[in-house]
Formats: sequence, C-alpha cells, structure tokens
Amino acid sequence: MSRRVTIVENILSANDQIAAQNRALLDAHGVVALNVMASPGAGKTSLILRTIERLDGSLRLGVVEGDTAAVTIDSDRIRARGIPVVQINTGGDCHLDAVMLQAALGQLELEQIDLLIVENVGNLVCPANFRLGTQWNVLIASVPEGDDKPYKYPGMYRGVDALVLNKIDLLPYVPFDMDYFRRGVQTLNPEARFFPLSCATGEGLEAWEGWLRSCISVKKDG
Amino acid sequence: MSRRVTIVENILSANDQIAAQNRALLDAHGVVALNVMASPGAGKTSLILRTIERLDGSLRLGVVEGDTAAVTIDSDRIRARGIPVVQINTGGDCHLDAVMLQAALGQLELEQIDLLIVENVGNLVCPANFRLGTQWNVLIASVPEGDDKPYKYPGMYRGVDALVLNKIDLLPYVPFDMDYFRRGVQTLNPEARFFPLSCATGEGLEAWEGWLRSCISVKKDG
Repeated sequence: MSRRVTIVENILSANDQIAAQNRALLDAHGVVALNVMASPGAGKTSLILRTIERLDGSLRLGVVEGDTAAVTIDSDRIRARGIPVVQINTGGDCHLDAVMLQAALGQLELEQIDLLIVENVGNLVCPANFRLGTQWNVLIASVPEGDDKPYKYPGMYRGVDALVLNKIDLLPYVPFDMDYFRRGVQTLNPEARFFPLSCATGEGLEAWEGWLRSCISVKKDG
Repeated sequence: MSRRVTIVENILSANDQIAAQNRALLDAHGVVALNVMASPGAGKTSLILRTIERLDGSLRLGVVEGDTAAVTIDSDRIRARGIPVVQINTGGDCHLDAVMLQAALGQLELEQIDLLIVENVGNLVCPANFRLGTQWNVLIASVPEGDDKPYKYPGMYRGVDALVLNKIDLLPYVPFDMDYFRRGVQTLNPEARFFPLSCATGEGLEAWEGWLRSCISVKKDG
C-alpha cells in the first residue's frame, strides 16, 4: 500500500516539474495559455470557436486539442478557421498531463502565438489533479448539467481562475437554481471570475472576451 | 516503463477477480444489478428516482451511490423514498471499482433485494475500465451533451448492454442529429438496447421499465 502511494506521489511530482518547464517556455515566448476543462458536452469546443470569432485578427491564437480517441472532429473544426492546432490523443487516458502538453508545445511556433487555448479531455474529476503549466485554469459548467455540480465535483471547482456557465439559453427549459449554484461556487472558490454565457446565442461573450484581453495585456504572476 | 505497465495490469486483474466474486455473491442471492454510468449531469439520479417510482412495490430495490465527495445530495433523495442506499465516497477517485462495490454489498441485506442499481461516478472515460461484477452495464447519454459523444468517448459506448438517451424533451432547443448519434453507436455497439426517454416529462420510461422487468425475470448468463 505504501508502495502504491509512493508511486503516485512520484508521478505527480514529476508532472509538476514538467508543468513548471511548460510555464517557463510559455512565459519566455510571451504566450498566455488557458487550460479549459469541463464535462463532456459542456461546450469546450464551442467556446473555443466563439473565442476565435471574436479574437482572430487582433490576437494570434493557437489551440491544443486533447482527446481520448483518435478522432479529429474538434481539431478539424478549429483548423477550418485557419488556426494552428495540435491534437493530443491520450490513448484512452482521462486527462491531459504536463508531459503531453510539453510534446504539443514542441510542435507549435510559440513566437507566433499570443493566446494558446488547451482543450482538456471531457472530465469533471481527473484533470483537476494534473497541472499543465498554463497561466490560467478555466472550467466550463453548463446549465443542463444541473445546479448541484459544485457540491458534487468540488475538486474541479476549487482550483480554477475562471468559471464559465454555458448554455444559459436553456435556463427556461430546465430546473436550475442560480443562487444555489453560485453559493456552491462561492464556498469553494470565492475568487473565481464568473461568466454566464451562451455559445449558441452569443449572449454573455463580451465579458469573456474582455477577460481574455485583460489576461493578454497584464501577464499573470506566480 | 515496463514496470508501470505491469502494475496497471496487476490492478486490473485484481479488480476483475473481485468483480467475479461480486457477481457470484449477487447471483447467489438472486440479485440483478445494474452499473449505471454517465457524464456528470446526464441524469443518473433522476433515472434512478423515476425507476423507483415505477418499480417500488412490485420489486424490492436497492441503490449504491458512488460519489467523489462526501456529499449526500443524491443518497438523501433516494433514501427519502424508503429505498436502502449505501453511499461510496471515492475520496476524489474518478470511478467505482470492484473492491468499493464489494464493501458496499457487505452493508446491504441482499436477500431482501431483487434489483440493485449502482450509480457510478459521473465520468465518461474511466468507469469503462473497471468491471464491478454487475450483470448489466448501462450508459446514460443526454441530448444537450451533443450527438458526437459516441465518436469522442468510444470506450464507454463500446462496453454497455443498454444505452439510455435522456432529456429528449430538449431536442427542440439544441442541435442534435439523431441519425448521426445512432450511426456512431451502431458502429461501436450494435447489440446495445436503446432507450430514448425524458426523466423530466416521463416520456419513454415504459420501454425502460419493461427492459428492467425482463432482466429480473430472465437472469443473464455469462
């Protein structure tokens, strides 16, 4: 038992070391990177596509796509917009780790990128345990997932800098108590920025865009 | 590297041995058990509550609730219906395994249960790799997750006996190509029973109930 614990600790420590190297590499090239995490189907790729619509032309973007299977559905949609994309196939693994991102960074021309968006594997548990070295961690929740998710998946809500609540256009059609949801988030992570929005209708995207532009103009410390 | 592979194989093999013991225990007591898997928020607890509504009184039910955190939101809702519930707190782990279920089975009066529903942790990747020893594996997909999930999370779709598509009441409000979804499922798992339904409106629950009753009356072999 102690042996198994030891191995897990070694893996995490090795991951954090590589994450620090990733961070140094990003900083050295002036790249601001987001690690975007969410349940399957919460809208990670949709938010990336909306972000490209709003920022392409004024900022130089890049995307790293994490997928558990060798399908290129998401990568193809992003590449069709003319954005450089590197896909990481985790081979069934349930999260990205710093080593995977390190390999992906090696395939990008970092000096040509201002904002790098890393789409993690769709999973509301495991990605929280693996830092990638990005400056910012973002969680996308979605209205049809339900208002109790902060209470049931606290590990993921606790560690993020920004929380997007996507699919607010569905609020009239599903039970969702916004106060209950916000209280859950507040308890775990009172500092997180909150962006309720709809990638379907475009509502709320201005605030999200504004935050991203502020991340670029004022680089994060620590 | 080879050392790590060895360890993983040993863990899986140990899990399968315990799963076989769980299966023997369930069979010996005439308990039919379902392992219900899904993304966070797809409707696992809602389907369990709807199932209780339809079957309680004619079948003796029991529930095992898997959660990553020590919250009892779901267990409390089920216990309020007078159904025996055992909660497994995985302590942050992203899936149930056979050892966890073994411990839970020890806390239930199995001879008093006809149908045991095991609610796995909300996760569309990891639970597929850990058999529990239940006779039936069920996946709940949901309409707002999107029609591309079979293509992006094939491991989970491949191994299940029944696929529920929940939240069909939201079909008018979200883009969802049913043919595309069905083709993805068909490629991976042509044998899986398919139950489109809505736990919100009750539509489609008759077929689900009928399948559960057939599982009880004709015990599965192998």
